[in-house]
Amino acid sequence: METSIMKLYKNPDKNTWETLSTRAQLDKTQLNDTVTTILNEVKENKDAALYKYAELFDKVKLKTLEVTQSETENANNVISEELKKAIELAKDNIERFHSSQREEPTIIETTKGVQCWRKSVGIEKVGLYIPGGTAPLFSTILMLGIPAKVAGCKEIVLCTPPDSEGNVHPAILYTANLVGITKICKVGGAQAIAAMTYGTETVPQVYKIFGPGNQFVTKAKELVQQQGVAIDMPAGPSEVLVIADETANPSFVAADLLSQAEHGTDSQVILVTNDVTVIEKVNLELEKQLNALPRKEIAAKALENSRTMFFSSVEECVEFSNVYAPEHLIIASENAEAFIDKITNAGSVFLGNYSCESAGDYASGTNHTLPTYGYAKNYSGVSLDSFVKKITFQKLSKEGIQNIGNAIELMAAAEGLQAHKNAVTIRLNTINNLI
Amino acid sequence: METSIMKLYKNPDKNTWETLSTRAQLDKTQLNDTVTTILNEVKENKDAALYKYAELFDKVKLKTLEVTQSETENANNVISEELKKAIELAKDNIERFHSSQREEPTIIETTKGVQCWRKSVGIEKVGLYIPGGTAPLFSTILMLGIPAKVAGCKEIVLCTPPDSEGNVHPAILYTANLVGITKICKVGGAQAIAAMTYGTETVPQVYKIFGPGNQFVTKAKELVQQQGVAIDMPAGPSEVLVIADETANPSFVAADLLSQAEHGTDSQVILVTNDVTVIEKVNLELEKQLNALPRKEIAAKALENSRTMFFSSVEECVEFSNVYAPEHLIIASENAEAFIDKITNAGSVFLGNYSCESAGDYASGTNHTLPTYGYAKNYSGVSLDSFVKKITFQKLSKEGIQNIGNAIELMAAAEGLQAHKNAVTIRLNTINNLI
Repeated sequence: METSIMKLYKNPDKNTWETLSTRAQLDKTQLNDTVTTILNEVKENKDAALYKYAELFDKVKLKTLEVTQSETENANNVISEELKKAIELAKDNIERFHSSQREEPTIIETTKGVQCWRKSVGIEKVGLYIPGGTAPLFSTILMLGIPAKVAGCKEIVLCTPPDSEGNVHPAILYTANLVGITKICKVGGAQAIAAMTYGTETVPQVYKIFGPGNQFVTKAKELVQQQGVAIDMPAGPSEVLVIADETANPSFVAADLLSQAEHGTDSQVILVTNDVTVIEKVNLELEKQLNALPRKEIAAKALENSRTMFFSSVEECVEFSNVYAPEHLIIASENAEAFIDKITNAGSVFLGNYSCESAGDYASGTNHTLPTYGYAKNYSGVSLDSFVKKITFQKLSKEGIQNIGNAIELMAAAEGLQAHKNAVTIRLNTINNLI
Repeated sequence: METSIMKLYKNPDKNTWETLSTRAQLDKTQLNDTVTTILNEVKENKDAALYKYAELFDKVKLKTLEVTQSETENANNVISEELKKAIELAKDNIERFHSSQREEPTIIETTKGVQCWRKSVGIEKVGLYIPGGTAPLFSTILMLGIPAKVAGCKEIVLCTPPDSEGNVHPAILYTANLVGITKICKVGGAQAIAAMTYGTETVPQVYKIFGPGNQFVTKAKELVQQQGVAIDMPAGPSEVLVIADETANPSFVAADLLSQAEHGTDSQVILVTNDVTVIEKVNLELEKQLNALPRKEIAAKALENSRTMFFSSVEECVEFSNVYAPEHLIIASENAEAFIDKITNAGSVFLGNYSCESAGDYASGTNHTLPTYGYAKNYSGVSLDSFVKKITFQKLSKEGIQNIGNAIELMAAAEGLQAHKNAVTIRLNTINNLI
């Protein structure tokens, strides 16, 4: 097991765990100027700037920015029936799970006559960014479009870069149409984020922007967040941590590690185990499976930045995972459920040998937009919550204000806020016919 | 009604509504350098920097940064029994409402053999900032400390500036102790936000920072959010919009407007009505009540920046309110409940003539940390959700992966992610004894 492909650490001292959990440094300062220039140009020149950037970055002279009805219809004819059925199955599961997150208002009478409740209202206008490139990430449209629809968002805009022919991949068009996206625009990169933030003649302004992207997109989202628009969450490279014990299946573990590693050279995969034989077996499988992959160079490079951690006890395995706070946590164990209560920091958890990350990436029903880069310590993944505002309501009866009025008066006075007190006093006096 | 204290607009054209909803411009660029300097200094010199800034900004040479046990005990003796009882009543209501927001995991079987659920786990370490100054905002400690405790946050740190004697107001100490804050530090301003972001010898590093503050605190929160720590929400001056119809009580309405106006000269209060006589009566009451206020100069100044909007129909009143997206929305009407389904953008809604904003500010049970500055379009107020991460879990049985495996394989292949497909194929093959 000394021939581990990933760097191997045995029982590292606890005070090194934080360091062993650090992700690759992202150099974001360099991007600031470039992205700021793009943001400002789109803010000022709107559609004209988007056409210009399409020519510059996507190498295409677009006729229109919006996808036409006939383009969508054509996509419908191009996608195979079996892929449509697969997408339909995924859609059903994602819809089922996210619909279960709906919260009906429950009236709580906190004191007699004082009723409080929350009501979820969909964010009116949301924007989804879907990257282009070689792989058409239509699964992300399901993950963002479905909860947006379930939440009741009225306007759902999708921006995605066109290819050099000016086309958008049919799988993206088909899926966007299926989930009920209201408008699809051929705009990519930081300029897409700008367009949805400020609005242009073609691209509507939205209140919240979702979706993955390259470093320009990520930087743009970070910057526009300071300008009034909300974003799903801060982003970083994708990652998985697998805790494997002696009941794990090494070939499954290797396949899961590779499915993360193929995402990009900056992906991070961590194997944590309390069984040295697991390390050996997984490494053998890694070598075997890696060679058969079309994206093997990317995956091999990602593995170089990755780590295997051995701990003598399974408790330490989980404890380390909580310090690392992985986006995806796979518990490769027949006793996976015993781990649940010990997990404090993770984006999404996959329990047992048959719950591969791919299941959650595509079709089990959970969302695949998850906190990376240690953000699982303080952020949740995307869910129905991400697409609603929970507005609180309260209704006090005469009895209600009589029951809590005096407490409010005392507290307001103690905070030196006389007008806050008056608003209660004037009501109590009226009720008591004192004025 | 032409003598309205607040600027009056009658049936303004719909295309002016956005402009009429703009808040005062916040000049944030100037602060950038100052706050960045403070952040860097605290990051580097830790406690030493905090002592230095206490001397510079709070005009006090502190002996220790942490509040001692005896200071807390002393506070307990100083606070009157009746104020303690008032705080206790508020605490009970806030606890009751926020506890009702707890979400027990519900297992959803999206497809036979595919189980998905969410589990809420408290953010391990949170920091609360409570401003100093003339008014000790102990109510905010209830609003942040109680849900933190209900959520199961393990470490709850509170930072608040000391006075020039090096003391913290006893109401703050009493309340912090009551709700179970684990550590209270005498640190104010941007340096407090820095301390909780980076950690110092005395102030622990936290994962999420909550609480109001001046422009330095707000800027610091905005900046550290880009460095890994989460914040409650972006901040702006407080505001209320009152929709009053002919069934409103004008003296109550005036009292509510003033309770918002006394917060600060930058507070914004908006009266919206479909009844011209309401304008006249509320203005008379405003003048009468304003003169009796200790903070009347602040309130008068705030009223100058404020607006009265008259619309012929009540529908337009609500529609304008949705464009404005107020932090607090009071429906001063005996028919308030008829408005509920039309409200799309608001932080917290107060229904009927007896539901004054002060009730929600202190004791009804709802949270008073709410989205300002139009952020009610895309952000919720603070709730139990703000203090937890909702981790998704999934468990697939052999049957589960057999039911959805093929769909995953097809989708992964269509996205060009072969290793994602392999992770499924290798499991299906094993189940089918093909290898």
